[in-house]
Amino acid sequence: MMKRIELTWEVGFFRSEDQPPEKRVKSVVPGAVQLDWARAEGWGPYTYADNWKDYLWMEDVYWSYAAKLVLPDRKQDERVYFVCKGVDYRFKVKLNGKVIHDQEGMFTPFEIDITEIATDGDLLEILIFPAPKSVAEPAARIQANQSCKPAVSYGWDWHPRLIPLGIWDETYLEVRPACHIEDCEVFYELNDDFTQADVRLEYKLSQKGNGQLVWKMLDKHGNPVGEVSAPASVDEGNVTMILDNPELWWPNEQGEQVLYTSQVELLDENNELKDTRKNRVGFRRARLVMHPGAWDEPAEYPKTRSNPPITMEINGRQIFCKGTNWVNPEIFPGIITRETYEPLVTLAKEAHMNIFRVWGGGIVNKESFFDLCDEQGIMVWQEFPLACNNYIGTPEYLKVLDQESKSIIKRVRRHACHVLWCGGNELFNGWSGMTDQSLALRLLNSNCFNMDPQKPFIMTSPLAGMAHGSYLFRYQNGEEVFQVMPKASYTAYTEFGCPGPSPADYLKCFIPEEQLFPPKKGTVWETHHAFDAWYPGSNTWLEIDTIEDYFGPCSTLEELTERGMLLQSEGYKCIYEEARRQKPRCSMALNWCYNEPWPTAANNSLINWPARPKPAYYAVKASCRPILASARIPKFKWQEGELFSPELWILNDSQYPVPAGQIEAFIKIGDEEIFLIRWNYPELSPNWNMPGPIIRFQLPKVDAGQMTLILRNPANPDMDSEYVLLYRERQ
Amino acid sequence: MMKRIELTWEVGFFRSEDQPPEKRVKSVVPGAVQLDWARAEGWGPYTYADNWKDYLWMEDVYWSYAAKLVLPDRKQDERVYFVCKGVDYRFKVKLNGKVIHDQEGMFTPFEIDITEIATDGDLLEILIFPAPKSVAEPAARIQANQSCKPAVSYGWDWHPRLIPLGIWDETYLEVRPACHIEDCEVFYELNDDFTQADVRLEYKLSQKGNGQLVWKMLDKHGNPVGEVSAPASVDEGNVTMILDNPELWWPNEQGEQVLYTSQVELLDENNELKDTRKNRVGFRRARLVMHPGAWDEPAEYPKTRSNPPITMEINGRQIFCKGTNWVNPEIFPGIITRETYEPLVTLAKEAHMNIFRVWGGGIVNKESFFDLCDEQGIMVWQEFPLACNNYIGTPEYLKVLDQESKSIIKRVRRHACHVLWCGGNELFNGWSGMTDQSLALRLLNSNCFNMDPQKPFIMTSPLAGMAHGSYLFRYQNGEEVFQVMPKASYTAYTEFGCPGPSPADYLKCFIPEEQLFPPKKGTVWETHHAFDAWYPGSNTWLEIDTIEDYFGPCSTLEELTERGMLLQSEGYKCIYEEARRQKPRCSMALNWCYNEPWPTAANNSLINWPARPKPAYYAVKASCRPILASARIPKFKWQEGELFSPELWILNDSQYPVPAGQIEAFIKIGDEEIFLIRWNYPELSPNWNMPGPIIRFQLPKVDAGQMTLILRNPANPDMDSEYVLLYRERQ
Repeated sequence: MMKRIELTWEVGFFRSEDQPPEKRVKSVVPGAVQLDWARAEGWGPYTYADNWKDYLWMEDVYWSYAAKLVLPDRKQDERVYFVCKGVDYRFKVKLNGKVIHDQEGMFTPFEIDITEIATDGDLLEILIFPAPKSVAEPAARIQANQSCKPAVSYGWDWHPRLIPLGIWDETYLEVRPACHIEDCEVFYELNDDFTQADVRLEYKLSQKGNGQLVWKMLDKHGNPVGEVSAPASVDEGNVTMILDNPELWWPNEQGEQVLYTSQVELLDENNELKDTRKNRVGFRRARLVMHPGAWDEPAEYPKTRSNPPITMEINGRQIFCKGTNWVNPEIFPGIITRETYEPLVTLAKEAHMNIFRVWGGGIVNKESFFDLCDEQGIMVWQEFPLACNNYIGTPEYLKVLDQESKSIIKRVRRHACHVLWCGGNELFNGWSGMTDQSLALRLLNSNCFNMDPQKPFIMTSPLAGMAHGSYLFRYQNGEEVFQVMPKASYTAYTEFGCPGPSPADYLKCFIPEEQLFPPKKGTVWETHHAFDAWYPGSNTWLEIDTIEDYFGPCSTLEELTERGMLLQSEGYKCIYEEARRQKPRCSMALNWCYNEPWPTAANNSLINWPARPKPAYYAVKASCRPILASARIPKFKWQEGELFSPELWILNDSQYPVPAGQIEAFIKIGDEEIFLIRWNYPELSPNWNMPGPIIRFQLPKVDAGQMTLILRNPANPDMDSEYVLLYRERQ
Repeated sequence: MMKRIELTWEVGFFRSEDQPPEKRVKSVVPGAVQLDWARAEGWGPYTYADNWKDYLWMEDVYWSYAAKLVLPDRKQDERVYFVCKGVDYRFKVKLNGKVIHDQEGMFTPFEIDITEIATDGDLLEILIFPAPKSVAEPAARIQANQSCKPAVSYGWDWHPRLIPLGIWDETYLEVRPACHIEDCEVFYELNDDFTQADVRLEYKLSQKGNGQLVWKMLDKHGNPVGEVSAPASVDEGNVTMILDNPELWWPNEQGEQVLYTSQVELLDENNELKDTRKNRVGFRRARLVMHPGAWDEPAEYPKTRSNPPITMEINGRQIFCKGTNWVNPEIFPGIITRETYEPLVTLAKEAHMNIFRVWGGGIVNKESFFDLCDEQGIMVWQEFPLACNNYIGTPEYLKVLDQESKSIIKRVRRHACHVLWCGGNELFNGWSGMTDQSLALRLLNSNCFNMDPQKPFIMTSPLAGMAHGSYLFRYQNGEEVFQVMPKASYTAYTEFGCPGPSPADYLKCFIPEEQLFPPKKGTVWETHHAFDAWYPGSNTWLEIDTIEDYFGPCSTLEELTERGMLLQSEGYKCIYEEARRQKPRCSMALNWCYNEPWPTAANNSLINWPARPKPAYYAVKASCRPILASARIPKFKWQEGELFSPELWILNDSQYPVPAGQIEAFIKIGDEEIFLIRWNYPELSPNWNMPGPIIRFQLPKVDAGQMTLILRNPANPDMDSEYVLLYRERQ
């Protein structure tokens, strides 16, 4: 059986490849060279104030990890491997000064059989090159356009420039039997009515053996439902089994997340267990299909093409994708563990979400992320590490992309949660400048087709018919999301944002007290993205002008943040519910963004770093309930005497019908709650919305600053909704 | 050296695979079983009247070709090969009853070394299976949706149902040295400023030899400009050379069609020539790029993607593609020779065209087609054999498509004229139902990327931003192309049609005299596509109602056809010139269709079968001149007293500026020629159009039925244009 031995690492930096470091400090592996150095130097947290600026020089030097080998005992028929699941980014591995491995790319694991070449006390080194940069200037994401290094680290509108380097995933020595399982993977095909799965195990042994390979499939209770064996004398091959009526894996709130276990055992000639692998298997079929009516468009000659399909179909059922854009949950991915992911994935599930778009500016997450999504039913749209750049298809770049994409595909494809490949973010827009002809994207399509043909692939988001944006509660021309969204008509809103400040108590954790109020440019507010973040000169993401224009001057930090958070909450409700109303033409609503990798002062995020929900999270949670009463509201700010005219709807994206019932609408202004209308709605079909009456109500004179539209279903309060709006008396 | 020996074939049919044919008839190879049988039976031409109907039964039987082997003399170190460049469609090759080859697919050549297995007098057979049909009914193109058989043969709106079967390309015995050149191909890359070509010969020998391989590059005059040699002891590899300042290949009217010659010689140890290959090489770089301004669209949030690029760039120069849709020039591709292609390609060149879209409903043409296009500068947009169907990616279909597409790519990619791969026709429209996710199209992208990465690939036409249509001079809602086109705004018009009848003398060649006039449904007029052709109940393609609505009742065949041909001519001028005016957003104007495979009574074609230009050909030729005076005319039919208001333009898609000059506009009504305006236009930039004045002229009372707008450039009559329009006195 396998035996794992951890190594003890130290790390140091130097200015050129062949120069030895002046000193080395203790390293925590996996981690990042920056964190090791800061720890050794006793620096304050990089999340506080502008501490992160101290790290900037570290991207441009060489780093060297060193570990003295303490080789484990091994039997004669065992081997010792150096196993590494990821080094960030360009590196060489040396044993006693001799290069034994040379690689560019953080997503390709490697292992080296060191049995014959290493002895006790040898020095194992990993030499890390400076962060890849295609150009020396400007210090911005464009420097990432010839590498597979996630571009976000080079600086983004919500991410400081901090480019992690170093060993970022599990790295250890392992003693293995000479004949062990080098690789094994389960593939399957479901028949058209999902009553049968043709399951196949592909395996590769490190060498021919004398015993046999036994493959068992266990159901969700751990009961065996299939077993096949093959002689180990064939060191590469596949075995198959047929499962009748497999229990299917479903996304959150669409059914159970059933996971089988595939167990592979390698036995020797005495039937003694030499090696084993366990993997979970979820049976499901994911497709992108055309929405109802899509083929009828366009109607007229000259006739262009119909929009590409973006409606997600799981196991033959079209599913409205409610979800969000996932970004790195930490600046340094080396410190991410299952515990980092767990609360975030759980919060998504609790908010009725069923999909993460894992944005191409960030990393491809660690295994535990996919494990959690498998378990909690969050579908994963996985992008390759390309974002907002033109990744020109030079031979050097294509070679690394080919290697990295194959490693990513091989690792991710086996997860039940994984339903979509995507080339990267916004590559077909002017600021990126890539096209369908870009060799990098044709390579990715080719690799996905060849390695994972049953999974859909899109070159980027947005495609034709899809849209990104809007990203503000109110635009400079005065248009609010309340007006922008109802007149838009897209097949999927795969990014949209509504910014909001972080809560006051949270801000106090990383903004020095003297800078806290009022917020000013040139302070920590700015470096934590409250000013000039989206583009220079903009008020993003605090949008203080918009807040004060609606509410008047703010006199305390609490007043400012609460008002800003209200705008964010009501804006997000508007967008999510409007996207849902546009079903079935529209089939996705994914806000930008879910989480964040460090504390922002203001951001479009729903959850503050590391996993602290903002009020907008709860607003989105309400709007994502499978069944709810909803209102399309013409605008945010109302005045005495105006005709208040919300449009009532029942939204249903569950797989069940909604029985006929009643919605009562009230408006609360000041302390007064006024009954507006009672709507008797008939039964709704599964996954179908129902438009209802348009209320028309002349707003009375009340001494109040806000009003709340309240929708109640007396028989089913779970459907109740509230919308907070501004109210002003006539001057 | 190689020696070729023709075989003498006979062919017969039978009802099941293992039944011998009752009789065999003499076969002409290459050809088609249908033609052999008809010749033997003494049938009249299939192009005349409804003779083609006699052939229908032949698609459903088995056919067997048989040839008695007369083996050639050979030296001891020589081998005998059976070489076949194409059999249509599913077939087995048998030698004395034993199957020695089994294949589905007409585009994959094969060769069999029969030296050891054949003796004099042996029987070589090729068993042809019935035409592939995915479904028994309806007898329509849908039957082709699981094969790589061109769908057009199953019946189209201008093609009768006639499904060719049999040996359709060169087939012979060949005596070869045991060590001969099995394969060789030249690849190159041009540097960014086209001053250098890195040229590479990849070669494969049938076995290791004792001499050497000598590779020479000859310039257009036959002078050697490079020579490299390699030992024949390595039987597979590549050799490289660098060419400085290579003369580039250009499309028609953009420069010279320079073709180098690559000559490969295999010498034995005595320097005796054993085998040789000559190929022409044209150096050019083809790209699809964004048109100027394309990245600024779309402007607003929510923001979708920019349109995919469709502007053709050759050797760094953006070129407006003026061309046409090429269809099979014969129903039976087996009888096509260089002589079939030559007049058609020459006519395109003379009409100032520079591109053929080789439509996916038809075949991939024979080598001589590409040779002619190389020589005459007609770029080739090559589609794979998918059209107007949903080609579901079953394992069986994908396997054949993989094989056929690789064969097609390997054969076509080496031609200088070839600039674009395309998955097939109108696959992303409702009547086909394929999408970007279709495995067949992802397979084609993958194969093109892996085998010909420097060539652009599009999944289908139209893509987003591009359009097909319109296809009528006037639609049922009364809109003419004169109104439809100016309000359209697409990046490429890759299909548009304007139907017209064939000339009267041509019609007389295939319509029996008693059916000639008036044209009626249910006669040869209908089976030759004058009625109910596009869809049942339509007047396509004769459009007799439209003709008589404009001109009044027709009393003779000549009157009818001349009027119809006038509409076709003026309609095509309108569309080509309008597409050119929409440059640079629009970069392609390709009418549907250029030629036809048999005599149609009416069609959108410019050239009657086999190569007889219709009047519309000359109209298009005028509209495609690189530099011309042009008018955007609001409508076709005018009345006394109306304000005639054509908009004047100079169109220039040449690489040269147009010097400043004068355009004089006249209108001729009856015998009277009235001067309207003189426009002094300034110098035009290369490849740039100039809008001019809008004439406003109240039409006088004249006793006439037509009027002609005449544009003259006194200094350069080559720019002169004329537009014939209808004129009516006020009632």
